[in-house]
Amino acid sequence: MLHRLATLTAERESGQLLRRLRTIDHADGPWLESGGRRLLSFCSNDYLGLAQHPQLIAAFKRTADDEGVGSTSAHLICGHRREHAALEEALAAWTGRDRALLFSTGYMANLGVLQTLLARGDLCLQDKLNHACLLDGAQLSGAELKRYPHADVAAAARQFSSRGGAAALLATDGVFSMDGDVAPLRELADLCAREQATLMVDDAHGLGVLGSDGAGSLSAAGLGQHEVPVLMATLGKALGCAGAFVAGSASLIDGLTQLARPYIYTTAMPPAVAAAALAAVQLAQSETWRREKLAASIARFRRGAAELGLPLLPSSSAIQPLLLGDADTAVAASRHLEQHCLLVGAIRPPTVPAGKARLRITLSAAHDDAHVDQLLAALETLPAPAASPRRV
Amino acid sequence: MLHRLATLTAERESGQLLRRLRTIDHADGPWLESGGRRLLSFCSNDYLGLAQHPQLIAAFKRTADDEGVGSTSAHLICGHRREHAALEEALAAWTGRDRALLFSTGYMANLGVLQTLLARGDLCLQDKLNHACLLDGAQLSGAELKRYPHADVAAAARQFSSRGGAAALLATDGVFSMDGDVAPLRELADLCAREQATLMVDDAHGLGVLGSDGAGSLSAAGLGQHEVPVLMATLGKALGCAGAFVAGSASLIDGLTQLARPYIYTTAMPPAVAAAALAAVQLAQSETWRREKLAASIARFRRGAAELGLPLLPSSSAIQPLLLGDADTAVAASRHLEQHCLLVGAIRPPTVPAGKARLRITLSAAHDDAHVDQLLAALETLPAPAASPRRV
Repeated sequence: MLHRLATLTAERESGQLLRRLRTIDHADGPWLESGGRRLLSFCSNDYLGLAQHPQLIAAFKRTADDEGVGSTSAHLICGHRREHAALEEALAAWTGRDRALLFSTGYMANLGVLQTLLARGDLCLQDKLNHACLLDGAQLSGAELKRYPHADVAAAARQFSSRGGAAALLATDGVFSMDGDVAPLRELADLCAREQATLMVDDAHGLGVLGSDGAGSLSAAGLGQHEVPVLMATLGKALGCAGAFVAGSASLIDGLTQLARPYIYTTAMPPAVAAAALAAVQLAQSETWRREKLAASIARFRRGAAELGLPLLPSSSAIQPLLLGDADTAVAASRHLEQHCLLVGAIRPPTVPAGKARLRITLSAAHDDAHVDQLLAALETLPAPAASPRRV
Repeated sequence: MLHRLATLTAERESGQLLRRLRTIDHADGPWLESGGRRLLSFCSNDYLGLAQHPQLIAAFKRTADDEGVGSTSAHLICGHRREHAALEEALAAWTGRDRALLFSTGYMANLGVLQTLLARGDLCLQDKLNHACLLDGAQLSGAELKRYPHADVAAAARQFSSRGGAAALLATDGVFSMDGDVAPLRELADLCAREQATLMVDDAHGLGVLGSDGAGSLSAAGLGQHEVPVLMATLGKALGCAGAFVAGSASLIDGLTQLARPYIYTTAMPPAVAAAALAAVQLAQSETWRREKLAASIARFRRGAAELGLPLLPSSSAIQPLLLGDADTAVAASRHLEQHCLLVGAIRPPTVPAGKARLRITLSAAHDDAHVDQLLAALETLPAPAASPRRV
């Protein structure tokens, strides 16, 4: 079995698809030190620049002083702390849901929801570009999984047509993690209402960034709990911490509390992480300038990239992918940027489909205009063929 | 679908199986404050009493000051920090393995290992009392899952006999989470050697507690990497933090790095958590008095419980379950102890088999003799029928 694994790894290597682990020695806003070099990062998910905010750090340290590090137990034994309860209340209020439930990671939240809500004989529809853990959750549930072409509501509607009397759930990313575009949420909600199907949205990359209040892609689309009964989002991206939550009706949350295995059978997150996330939720709501600054950087970057004729995907979120085609080209472009002291991840198959390797550029409120301009200047020097498909 | 969930929840309620969430307002060693009361806890997994150790808290705070809260990304993008690398090295050295790989939770580590190592057509044998996430991991992998009766090596051997040419993996808890007993590791290793099957041990409740160096149940059994190629353990129990790791050969770790979805597609744990865990690993190795104190408390408790004729399960670990039978009896016993200001979890189906509800008493190096005696005194006052099956 371990030989088989070694063979699979070697195949990745021979296909230039080996993932490389880089150790970051120090983080200072968007600057990362690694191997004695200082690199300007355009690859973190710290979209609001909160991960190093003094108020997060202060809440984190204060709670560690008071409560220690680990929660020492699962929520339902004796691991549910005051800090978890306060964060759940704040998340429910922010997202306009009755209640919220913390999970240790988004991966576990999605597994827990899908495994709990779906049963054998049910139908689960998913966007083809959904996050890996949504697919794994459907597989764990034993329900029939059908994947519709990306953002194709008509195709999803056709997939419902053969369902017979099966109960159905449609799950979609709110903002797609590797493409940055927003799902057609209103149309999907209308479809699910017609089909009496449950709509679930994973807003990992939308929360904090979208909506005037930062409450995410559902807030931006004006969709409430009735239309989207299951909302999942994470605390490790725009909120700069770690962990995740599910928000929805009291009966959804009560049911998950009783039945979701990845909620029940795991250690609760450290109370200090919950306290820091609560500080982040408050800042994400009150410091609206962070979203405005991020939006300005996104606009500046897209304007500049269009002038350079770079192959940008149509995204208005913090995720701005440059589609480069094959894996070699994406890796070469990433290396080229690193020579210019810029850190941008090359995303290759199987994370994205073959032929759709890309640079995944992420912007943050921690970036200034000068940072964006530095990135554009380096992108302008990208050698062919990376910059050759000069179209937007 | 949400109606169905509400029905399932109501069924739990009518069967007296509803899990109750209690908010802990403050933790102070083994003392927990909740609802204005101060309760002595015998239900945490902080077996060495490290969760509030000043050195853990200091490392946690120092790293937060230097690096912020969240890691801001997956390991393979830009989330792998110096603190993660140092912790992985220390864990590999401690457990006597070539390398180690961090996961955000033990749940994700087990899912990742089983999903990566197993394929459709393979055979996965598991002890019937294995943790939920080992079962979920096997299900995700698509391999055939067979569960052998608890700790029954002969039964496991029989299950191998029909495998034909299928590749096989046997997974077992090192210390069983609800029973506290240690798996027959040497016999399982011999069986796997004969069968050319891969042995995987989840030592979540053994690491830190067992072995003269605290390196866990495999160290105590004298089993190295060759005999047990896949070791998983967590950082949220005896180490007092959060997260988990897999340790093994370089080719195992390289393969997981490239292929394990719950490693690749998730945010790395906060660097401060990794720094605190590193401090915990050092303390778990150097402060041998913690294991000695815990062992003395276990012996004191078992001696006292035997004198009282309490229905103790045969465990020599920090987990000391009192088998009480039906769920009502276990809940009544837990409530009775709470009236005596003691917090002990009642574990009911489906976490344990029907008819095997229990009090799961956990001891810690944070407990003094007086604490143990206080627990024994309260157990002596347990009303019938809880204390009626007076046998050990």
